[in-house]
Formats: sequence, structure tokens, C-alpha cells
Amino acid sequence: MSTRELHLNAFLMNTGHHEASWRLPESDPYAHVELGHYVRLAKIAERGTFDSLFLADSPQLWGNLAQRPAGALEPLTLLTALATATEHIGLIATASTSYNSPYNLARRFASLDIVSGGRAGWNIVTTAGAEAARNFGLAAEPAHAERYARAAEFLDVSLKLWDSWEDDAIVGDKAAGVWGDDRKLHPPRHEGTYFSVEGALNVPRTPQGYPLLVQAGSSEDGRAFAARYAEAVFTAQQTLADAQAFYADLKSRTRAAGRDPEHVKVLPGIVPVLGSTEAEARAAEQLLEDHIVYEHGVGRLESLLQLPAGTLRLDGRLPADLPPESAVEGAKSRYTLVVELARRERLTVRQLIGRLGGGRGHLTFAGTPEQVADQIETWFTRGAADGFNIMPAVLPSGLEAFVEHVVPVLRGRGLLRTEYGPRRTLRERYGLPRPANQYLTPAPALV
Amino acid sequence: MSTRELHLNAFLMNTGHHEASWRLPESDPYAHVELGHYVRLAKIAERGTFDSLFLADSPQLWGNLAQRPAGALEPLTLLTALATATEHIGLIATASTSYNSPYNLARRFASLDIVSGGRAGWNIVTTAGAEAARNFGLAAEPAHAERYARAAEFLDVSLKLWDSWEDDAIVGDKAAGVWGDDRKLHPPRHEGTYFSVEGALNVPRTPQGYPLLVQAGSSEDGRAFAARYAEAVFTAQQTLADAQAFYADLKSRTRAAGRDPEHVKVLPGIVPVLGSTEAEARAAEQLLEDHIVYEHGVGRLESLLQLPAGTLRLDGRLPADLPPESAVEGAKSRYTLVVELARRERLTVRQLIGRLGGGRGHLTFAGTPEQVADQIETWFTRGAADGFNIMPAVLPSGLEAFVEHVVPVLRGRGLLRTEYGPRRTLRERYGLPRPANQYLTPAPALV
Ligand SMILES: Cc1cc2nc3c(=O)[nH]c(=O)nc-3n(C[C@H](O)[C@H](O)[C@H](O)COP(=O)(O)O)c2cc1C
Ligand SMILES: Cc1cc2nc3c(=O)[nH]c(=O)nc-3n(C[C@H](O)[C@H](O)[C@H](O)COP(=O)(O)O)c2cc1C
Repeated sequence: MSTRELHLNAFLMNTGHHEASWRLPESDPYAHVELGHYVRLAKIAERGTFDSLFLADSPQLWGNLAQRPAGALEPLTLLTALATATEHIGLIATASTSYNSPYNLARRFASLDIVSGGRAGWNIVTTAGAEAARNFGLAAEPAHAERYARAAEFLDVSLKLWDSWEDDAIVGDKAAGVWGDDRKLHPPRHEGTYFSVEGALNVPRTPQGYPLLVQAGSSEDGRAFAARYAEAVFTAQQTLADAQAFYADLKSRTRAAGRDPEHVKVLPGIVPVLGSTEAEARAAEQLLEDHIVYEHGVGRLESLLQLPAGTLRLDGRLPADLPPESAVEGAKSRYTLVVELARRERLTVRQLIGRLGGGRGHLTFAGTPEQVADQIETWFTRGAADGFNIMPAVLPSGLEAFVEHVVPVLRGRGLLRTEYGPRRTLRERYGLPRPANQYLTPAPALV
Repeated sequence: MSTRELHLNAFLMNTGHHEASWRLPESDPYAHVELGHYVRLAKIAERGTFDSLFLADSPQLWGNLAQRPAGALEPLTLLTALATATEHIGLIATASTSYNSPYNLARRFASLDIVSGGRAGWNIVTTAGAEAARNFGLAAEPAHAERYARAAEFLDVSLKLWDSWEDDAIVGDKAAGVWGDDRKLHPPRHEGTYFSVEGALNVPRTPQGYPLLVQAGSSEDGRAFAARYAEAVFTAQQTLADAQAFYADLKSRTRAAGRDPEHVKVLPGIVPVLGSTEAEARAAEQLLEDHIVYEHGVGRLESLLQLPAGTLRLDGRLPADLPPESAVEGAKSRYTLVVELARRERLTVRQLIGRLGGGRGHLTFAGTPEQVADQIETWFTRGAADGFNIMPAVLPSGLEAFVEHVVPVLRGRGLLRTEYGPRRTLRERYGLPRPANQYLTPAPALV
């Protein structure tokens, strides 16, 4: 096994990442709110010695009900239930810094970290879109830069809260009647632009100190944020060259921020569609595309590109005069990725919807297990990835196929662990040190 | 078995409700954040066919570390983990209407209700005290009346969110490519004094429709709120007469609010301290009192009574000129209960602290299993209670003793079920109907 470890994360999403997956005969249209479905997926991922499970989130009902499965179990709730059904795998929940309070969210992540024995991770997002804003008393989406400014303060407060108990604050001296040492408590007394938080957290410091910090924004502000805080970064990249550029940029920003670039793991998304031959894989991909309702995709694309409804035609192309990314207040990097994909490959709107239907901008790769393993190895060894966010088009079958057929190939090549081994926490699996408490000063020298 | 069912709820709190419980040899001072401790308690309660488990909460670190176990696992997180470790028992989590957003909290309770197969309950509290307020950007505690006004709007919005999907909104028509029926979606479009919430919940309607609604405030505003919304009410009562008066008042208010008084269950708290003889029980009580650090209790009492630090002396009595309940902005009903207890029994401050140390105002009852069962039966049959909130002084041993020794007596008298039977949801156990969806109009007659 090479010293550099490949990290695999299972991105779980109802019946799969392909928008038409629910229409296949094998799929259960109610699976997205069935605990049993997710327990089954978690166990498959543990068989494949994945580092972690990941759930996306936004506090809003996406799109409409007609198109595809909508709604979900709230991610921290679902991952807490999965913590008791699994033993090793990390549990990464998405939660928004724009629509939560630091005190509430910090204690929920601390609680999950304790309940899971140190397996919690937080995918920190700022939540694009006006729909979410309107569920929290705002008339419109806060500007992109403001969302990231709030996110940075949210993190600073959360880190203070997680450090507000020293690791050895509990004394438990029954004879003296002294349970804990109040000198080892550090209330944040934070007064900032977005938050004032006075008191210490009501959860002791956790196995990991705090959850693994994950980030998934690729805009300028998103990368700056990642360089400062993130220990793992999810990203959508369509070509090896783009992925290499992103990887190099993020590592150098991390170094510039005074951190070890090895302490941030870059994990592009990949939607593997497997077949025992290349032709079989392509047929599986085609079957999914045949089930897309293209008319639905037009509205979603217009909304992502901030175009008035009715602008796009299925057999036309994107307008030539789309605004630059700087004019976008929503999901900046996804906007650019989609526009560049359409232009680079001269796709019609219909073809573009077909491509996005599989992974919403993530790289779909149809092939044999060896071909998928080759792709993974190439990106991993050529400076494009530290691992992958595996996004099966259909669930559970796509995850099962990956674990049965691709994982053994990766193990055979010495790229992937064959068992979990003695490391217990998610941060240990990523090869990262347990963070020190920011309030701990070195002990004074004895005189 | 009589047609009227006795309802038992296990109020779990780290090593027990007695503040000195952690100092006993049997207690683990770290138990309050150990999942295994709570799993064990949950299984004991299921052996005793309790209706539910209950966890209290406030988003703040109570008191100081020296005195007794502080901090806890966040209740919804812990109960989600317990949902997978249990099969029948209800799961009632406390959450604050003052320091949450309806959209976030509604989806968390909906998710727990789904994950647990319809066993979720919400103890709705408004959270007294400035400490909590200062963790959420407020300089001071909002006034009592304002907290309850916000609570009422919070409930109205939550009920709209839980009803925002009709039960049969999911269609799952694979052939037609139609997953759900958008006409069965009802976005709240709520614009009120405290909240604006536009969109539908991103969780389908749940097994119970929504969590069982529980309430625990006994002030004038608290009772009015309970009469309007609550399906179960926790209360602290020191005497049969007080408990009967509260019971009658709450039932008549519920009737006046246009609801069936049988649809609100009144559950006073009781701290049973068991012994195989009366003398043994009193000795167990004395052992606990001997472990109280009385100096700590003075500060807590001053804070509850809103007195300046240093006012009270251990061997003195409460001042004669305490302000009336109407002048209190914190926990109104608890204030009155404590003042009346001290006056009625002419207690010194030390004696009062001894009494409160066991159950913070709840009735402590030391006796044999038969005596405890008598007490329960008396209150149950004489119009003081529909059941009890069992608050063992020491955990797990106190719950174990109750289930081993009191439960069989109650069953023998035909007061308590001997097995769970076919009812699945918490609301079914309470004998309550599943709530109808507020947006559902009767189907038009066929023509
Ligand atoms: C794999 C992956 C998962 C993501 N998951 C979420 C999510 O769950 N919720 C969310 O609001 N944004 C999610 N995002 C989007 C980003 O967090 C971000 O909002 C988006 O890329 C726009 O950020 P940017 O403007 O910095 O590029 C995800 C992105 C990636 C690559
Ligand atoms: C059994 C019981 C449990 C309670 N649990 C909580 C709790 O967890 N959190 C909280 O803030 N208040 C809790 N309370 C207090 C009440 O919700 C309420 O805040 C207090 O009685 C003051 O309300 P009032 O002013 O309406 O009397 C509890 C009360 C009782 C009787």
C-alpha cells in the first residue's frame, strides 16, 4: 500500500444521483425517507472501507413534486440514526451557516461526534437561493460575499464553543464533591458582526475536539474559506486539467494561509456507471437518459443560469451573451462549470440536460470496473484528487456494484485499504491530527 | 384493566434527578454524555412498558462545573440514537421556541417521527433566563408574555409546515414520470409578528402527522398555551390538593378552548425513593441529602428567587417580603411553588435546599413499592393526574427499582398495561387520534 491513501466518500441521495433513477424498475419511490434504505447503503459503504458517508442539504423544498423525489430526512438526524447502525464510517452532514445559530449547530455536531465515537463531519455551506432565504424571514438571498463573511464568523464562534471546555475539565471527585474544574471552562464572550454568543457550550469537548470541517464551494470566496478552515473539499470538475488546476490552487492557498496543504483533502465528485463491458455501461447510461423528462430540465437550467423562464429551447443552444460569474449571486462555481461544459462540447440544451441529469455537473463516467479504477488512479496520481466523492447514479445498486467490482481493483493496486484497522475517528482516517484547544497555553515552567 | 390508562413517562437526567446522585459509589460521573448509559435506561423503561422517555433542555450551560454534572447530549440527537435502540417507547425532546427557527425545528421533529416510526414528542418550552438569551445575540431575556406570544406563533407555523404535504402527495408513477402531486402541497406563506416562512417543508407528512405536543409551563400564560395546543402536560405539584386544582383548571381550560379534555394528559412529576421498608427508603433519602453541598444551593436559590447574591443564610428563612409571581419574568410557576413550599412547611434555607435537591420542586416520595403505588393510584383516581413523570433520584438504579418493584404492583392492580400491544405511535399510546391535515377540505360529492 502506498503511503498516500486514497479517500472515498459515499454521497448518498435517495434512489441515486441520476434524476431519473427513481423511474427504474428496481427503485423504491419512497426510499428517500426510509431509514432502512440508508442503513443498507451505509453497510455497503463500510464493506468498501469508505472513509465516510455524506448527505447534502438545503433548508427548502427543491423544485416541484412532479419531477422527482423531493424532501428528505434532515441530515444530522439521519446520520445520528446511522451512527448506531455502523461502526467505522465517518458521517458528514451538510448544514448552512446562513440559516442556523452557532450555539445550536455547534452542540448538535458535538453531540453527534460523541454519539458516534468521533466520526462526525460538517459540510459547511452558505446556501444559495432565495427560496431558502424566504423560509427564514428574509425577502431575498443575502449577497454571496456577505454569506461567506457570515460563514467565517460562524466558524470562529463555533470553534470557540467547541474549545470552551478543556479536555480534562471533568474531575469527578466524589469525595470532595467537586465534579468539574471551572478554570478549564472558556466562555466565548463573542461579540461580532453577525453573532453575539456569551456562554460556554453545554457539551464537553468531543472525541475529535470538533467535527471534521468540510467545504464545497469553489468560487473565489469559497476557495479562500476552504484554505482557511477546510480539512476536506468536495468539488465538481469535468476535466483532468480543470481538476489539476483546482487542486494546485487550493493546496497553494492553504499553504499561503499558513496551513499544511496535506491537511486539506480534495475530493472531486464522480458518477460511475458500471458495466461488465464498455457497451453495457453505455447502455445503462442510455437507459437513464431515456427516462429523463427533458421539459422539466429546462426550467431548472434557466433558474441556475438566472435566465427568464421561456428563454431556452430544447434543441437550441445557450445564449452567447450570458453574464460573467461575477454577476451571479447564487452558486457561482456551478454556474461557470455548466456554461463552460456546454460551450466546450457545443451541446444543445437537450444534450446539456442529459449530461447534468446524471450528476448535476459532476463527472459522469461510464465504463468497466477497470476503466473506472483507471480514471480514479489517474486523477489520484496526477495531482487532481486526494480521493473521490462517489455519487452512484442509482442506489443502492450503483454503490453495491462499485464496492463489489471497483473496490477490489483499487485494493489490488494498493490504492485502497483492505480493512479499517485501529484508527477510530474520521480525522484519524484522513491522517489529520486532533486539533489542539485554542485556549490552552503551555503549562508554566516549574520554579 | 380499567378503561382509563395510566401513563408513565421516564424523565432521564444523567446520574439521576437528585443533585448529589453523581457522588454515590454506584454512579459514573461521565454518564451524562455516554450513549450506553441512555440505551440502558431506555431498555429498562421499555421493560416497564412506559409510554415515553423525556429529556429536558436549555441552550446554555447551567450553573458551574464544580457543583454537579453539567452539559448533556442535545436531546433530539440523543433521542434519535435511542430510536434505533428501542422499538415501542415514545421519545419526547425539549426544544425552545425562543431560540429556534420553525423551519429547522419542524423538519427535525418530522425526521425523528419518521425514523422512529411515529414515536416523536416535543416538549415545547419558552426558556427562562438571561444566560440562554445571551447565547443568541440578545442582551436580556425577552419578557414572559412575549416569549409565550412567540411560542404560539411558532406552533402555528410549525403546524402549517407539518401539514404542508398531504398524506398522499407522493404518487410514484414511474411510467408517466410523475413522482408527486403538486396540488397536494400547501406552502405556508406565513407572514407574522415573529416569523415569515414561505415554502413547504422538505419532509413529507409523518406517521403521526406531527410529534405529540407536550408542554410544561404552569403560569397563567403557560396554562392558556397548554389548553390550546398541548396533548400532554408535565407539571410540578407538591400536594394532592394543588395537583387536583391544577388538573381541574387545565381540563376546564381545554374544554373552553373547544378541545376534548381527554385529549390533554396531565402528568405531575414524582421522585420515588424506594426501600423494601419505609425505614430503608428514608435512609436512602438521607444518604442523598448528606451528599448535598449546601453552599452551592444558596446561589441557585437566590437566582430562582431573583434575590441579590448574599441575601440568603443557610440557617435563616426566606425573606417575608418576596415579590408576587406577576413580578417574575423567569420561571413563574416554579417560583411560586418554591416560595409556598418553604412557607407551608416553615423550612429553613438549608431544609428547602434539601427538599429541592431531590427534584427541583417535584414531589419526592420515599417509601416501599406499595406505598409509592398507593400514592400513584390515589392521585390517578382522585382527579390529580392521568399519569406520572417518573424522575428517579439515582439512575439507572432508581429506574430499575421502579420497574422491578412498583410496575408489578401497578400491573397487579390493573392500572398499567402488561405489554405494548398493537398500538405503534406515541399518540396511539396516549389514546389520541392522528391529527387531520388542516388544508384538507372534504372531498366533493360525486355527481
Ligand atoms: C459535492 C458537492 C456537494 C454540495 N453540497 C451542497 C449542499 O448540500 N448544500 C448546498 O447548499 N450547497 C452544496 N454544494 C454547493 C456549494 O456548497 C456551493 O453552494 C456552490 O458550489 C456555490 O458555491 P460557490 O458560489 O462558492 O461556488 C455542494 C457542492 C459540491 C461540489
Ligand atoms: C417536568 C418539567 C420539565 C420541564 N422541562 C423544561 C426544560 O427542559 N426546559 C425549560 O426551559 N423548561 C422546562 N420546564 C419549565 C417550564 O417549561 C417552564 O419554563 C417553567 O415552568 C416556567 O414556565 P411558567 O413561567 O409558564 O411556569 C419544565 C417544567 C416541568 C414541570
